[in-house]
Amino acid sequence: MTPRSDNYSQWYQDLVIKADLAENSPVRGCMVIKPYGYAIWEKMQRILDDKFKETGHVNAYFPLLIPKSFLSREAEHVEGFAKECAVVTHYRLKVDPETNGVIVDPAAKLEEELIIRPTSETIIWSTYKKWIQSYRDLPILCNQWANVMRWEMRTRLFLRTAEFLWQEGHTAHATREEAEIEAKKMQGVYADFAQDYMAMPVIKGVKSESERFAGAIDTYTIEAMMQDGKALQAGTTHFLGQNFGKAFDVTFIDKEGKTDYAWATSWGVSTRLIGALIMAHSDDNGLVLPPALAPIQVVIIPIYRSADQLAKISEKVQPLIDQLKKQGISVKFDDSDNRKPGWKFANYELKGIPVRLALGARDLENGTIEIMRRDTLTKETISFEGIVEHIQGLLEEIQKNIFQKAIDLRKERTIEVDTYEAFKEKIEEGHFIMAHWDGTKETEEKIKNETKATIRCIPLEGDKTPGKCMVTGKPSACRVLFAKAY
Amino acid sequence: MTPRSDNYSQWYQDLVIKADLAENSPVRGCMVIKPYGYAIWEKMQRILDDKFKETGHVNAYFPLLIPKSFLSREAEHVEGFAKECAVVTHYRLKVDPETNGVIVDPAAKLEEELIIRPTSETIIWSTYKKWIQSYRDLPILCNQWANVMRWEMRTRLFLRTAEFLWQEGHTAHATREEAEIEAKKMQGVYADFAQDYMAMPVIKGVKSESERFAGAIDTYTIEAMMQDGKALQAGTTHFLGQNFGKAFDVTFIDKEGKTDYAWATSWGVSTRLIGALIMAHSDDNGLVLPPALAPIQVVIIPIYRSADQLAKISEKVQPLIDQLKKQGISVKFDDSDNRKPGWKFANYELKGIPVRLALGARDLENGTIEIMRRDTLTKETISFEGIVEHIQGLLEEIQKNIFQKAIDLRKERTIEVDTYEAFKEKIEEGHFIMAHWDGTKETEEKIKNETKATIRCIPLEGDKTPGKCMVTGKPSACRVLFAKAY
Repeated sequence: MTPRSDNYSQWYQDLVIKADLAENSPVRGCMVIKPYGYAIWEKMQRILDDKFKETGHVNAYFPLLIPKSFLSREAEHVEGFAKECAVVTHYRLKVDPETNGVIVDPAAKLEEELIIRPTSETIIWSTYKKWIQSYRDLPILCNQWANVMRWEMRTRLFLRTAEFLWQEGHTAHATREEAEIEAKKMQGVYADFAQDYMAMPVIKGVKSESERFAGAIDTYTIEAMMQDGKALQAGTTHFLGQNFGKAFDVTFIDKEGKTDYAWATSWGVSTRLIGALIMAHSDDNGLVLPPALAPIQVVIIPIYRSADQLAKISEKVQPLIDQLKKQGISVKFDDSDNRKPGWKFANYELKGIPVRLALGARDLENGTIEIMRRDTLTKETISFEGIVEHIQGLLEEIQKNIFQKAIDLRKERTIEVDTYEAFKEKIEEGHFIMAHWDGTKETEEKIKNETKATIRCIPLEGDKTPGKCMVTGKPSACRVLFAKAY
Repeated sequence: MTPRSDNYSQWYQDLVIKADLAENSPVRGCMVIKPYGYAIWEKMQRILDDKFKETGHVNAYFPLLIPKSFLSREAEHVEGFAKECAVVTHYRLKVDPETNGVIVDPAAKLEEELIIRPTSETIIWSTYKKWIQSYRDLPILCNQWANVMRWEMRTRLFLRTAEFLWQEGHTAHATREEAEIEAKKMQGVYADFAQDYMAMPVIKGVKSESERFAGAIDTYTIEAMMQDGKALQAGTTHFLGQNFGKAFDVTFIDKEGKTDYAWATSWGVSTRLIGALIMAHSDDNGLVLPPALAPIQVVIIPIYRSADQLAKISEKVQPLIDQLKKQGISVKFDDSDNRKPGWKFANYELKGIPVRLALGARDLENGTIEIMRRDTLTKETISFEGIVEHIQGLLEEIQKNIFQKAIDLRKERTIEVDTYEAFKEKIEEGHFIMAHWDGTKETEEKIKNETKATIRCIPLEGDKTPGKCMVTGKPSACRVLFAKAY
């Protein structure tokens, strides 16, 4: 595997393949999510889904295909999403009598082409029109777990793929205030998930106008730092105002009997989070998974020379396995006989299993066990007695330590810069740069063109001291967060 | 709502809409699964997913789009699936300068068209080729939860839609025997799910050649009877032999060092099961949901005249709600003030909530509560004391009773017939008919053309006495199951 210091990008690609998380498919830009990668996604899904339900949301399912004309209804939305998308034009194939292969049946041309959803605002708001008449029908708080498709030219496993899996929440409200609260609330849900489960610190902020979702009034984001100092947008929530209410004519009678358009939000996170998880914590030996999301939290490897030794070890560890499972800890006992312990050790390091136990004949005699933690790669031999509590404590400690490491890195690589000269130099090193900006699209674009850095967000919290734009010298309300981004 | 006796088919359509389960979308043949319908699907998913994992399977995800040429690789598969499918031909739209609408960009035509998966054997086996080299790589036991698309001409909510949600298991094995065992095992998993959770008795059998999955050596099925005596295929598992191994050149080195093609199975159930659930049990008042799959198992309705009364009732029922939740029973307390109790009663009957509790001022005085069970629509007033145990017992009883009712109906409407004359008469009344058949495609087709009845399966269990074909008089190995089907 390429070391991070040689080529961070190649290290990432190598790791995704070697750790059996995903691979490219025969369909350009589309990935196969392999069982181990999907197991991480399932853990993320379960936790997020519970959080959505706790905050009053329900799941539903809307069609994969969207009539082409729907995209044009909202002027900005079409700009953002109609460009690169998969277009269904026919609904039948037939056998070619000449080659015996199959060809598209020209007689089966659709009257109106259908688009594979790049996001579902349009199809959902065309449906909400039927569901909403009165303020009593509001709020509608729906989420869907779905696949979406954006015809990306340059793809990278998990981070940017033509097809990806995600959840998209779409809510409708009677008032502007309620919708704004919803968008901010879901940003909070995403931030808590990133920090408490992914062990990945994030900065909550609002996007500048040019980085907004196409059709949004405000886009809220959570931005995380990867180990190379680049930013990764880990989740966004959008206050859509009445844009989609107007585009799809979704009106309701309010309490006073007046008619108004419904207010909207949408919000989503995707399989991209798996890419973020990998890039935030892993090292040159492989994955480092936070225990809260590791499909297997503990692996036990027997060290034996004979079937008899293996039987004794198995007998010794079986109660331990049962107790760990009872505590909700996922554990794998790898007694496979076609690989040596050394190979297994390296393999489970690669897979990022947080805690590894090894037990041999001498341990049986001494009542000990060897325990290794993946995050620090340190190992020690400890008493078998009280091992369950030790593991529970260790898993918590690993979760905290991974988070703290990420916090420390971000602190180290976040800097304030006051001149554009310094900015251009520092941005190449990989930093979160807090700098003053005059608030104009023009300056933002100039910086982007000249340095490839973008405004990741205007942070919600932190220093709000005004200053002068590093480029134009014009007044700036506060420092904003610049970085190069994935 | 149309009564079942007037028009069973219309009753079904009305019920799906009125109970807020699903609706048609603006995209022909595609449905919107509404939150209440989706909640049933989520319960099904969770139970099935646990069963798949218990039997050693893991989840993964494969691309939505399949290169057109893949479909032609397996000769029978292309016959069955290449016909009616959604074809992606372009990957970009552009703004039409004349109309300002969006049009397909002719410059963005794909070299090879892509098909939205109607099922995933082809894309998965093209991937398995990379995963399988040695017998050590086998078995592969993957499942995916996904959307699929078949361009159906006549659609009906849940039962037959262009897009539907399902799971598809795809396994690869080193031996024929192991693959055959897998296909039968998963048929057993489906049968247990149908009977234990859906309270829907099923007949396990094997399909005749003409009813087999396109590309299978054997298709195993579970067939359920709906209340009109028609059959519904609720799940199928396929032993695919080496057909896909050969089509995608998936070979492996066996223990003896010889090369062989991998053996395959696939198996799936879909959102069609929600249609089956509705048609198996519901009545003219609405849904009847088995407690094991009801999103809400108990609803509590306060009967009050004043805020003070409501407060007292709420105080009384809160501990009950807590206790029910602790027992894993989902409960809703509907204290909304914009609907009268009578409206609520009818609504929760429509929604099929298994147990309804109602509590008024007099109940508070007497220490009683009114309890109604949805399956029999009977109600009684019982002591508030011991109510939790009573509800637990009642939910189990309802689950059993719904199943027994379905068993009784099937028994009543399953008949043996020995002449084709009698067959033609009886099939019109709605029956499962056990009759002798000579085993030929020709006879099967003649019966299908003349009566619209098909061979649902050759049952695995039951009477295996030979006889004579009711149509041709030729020898028959055993009676097979005929019915009209959804």
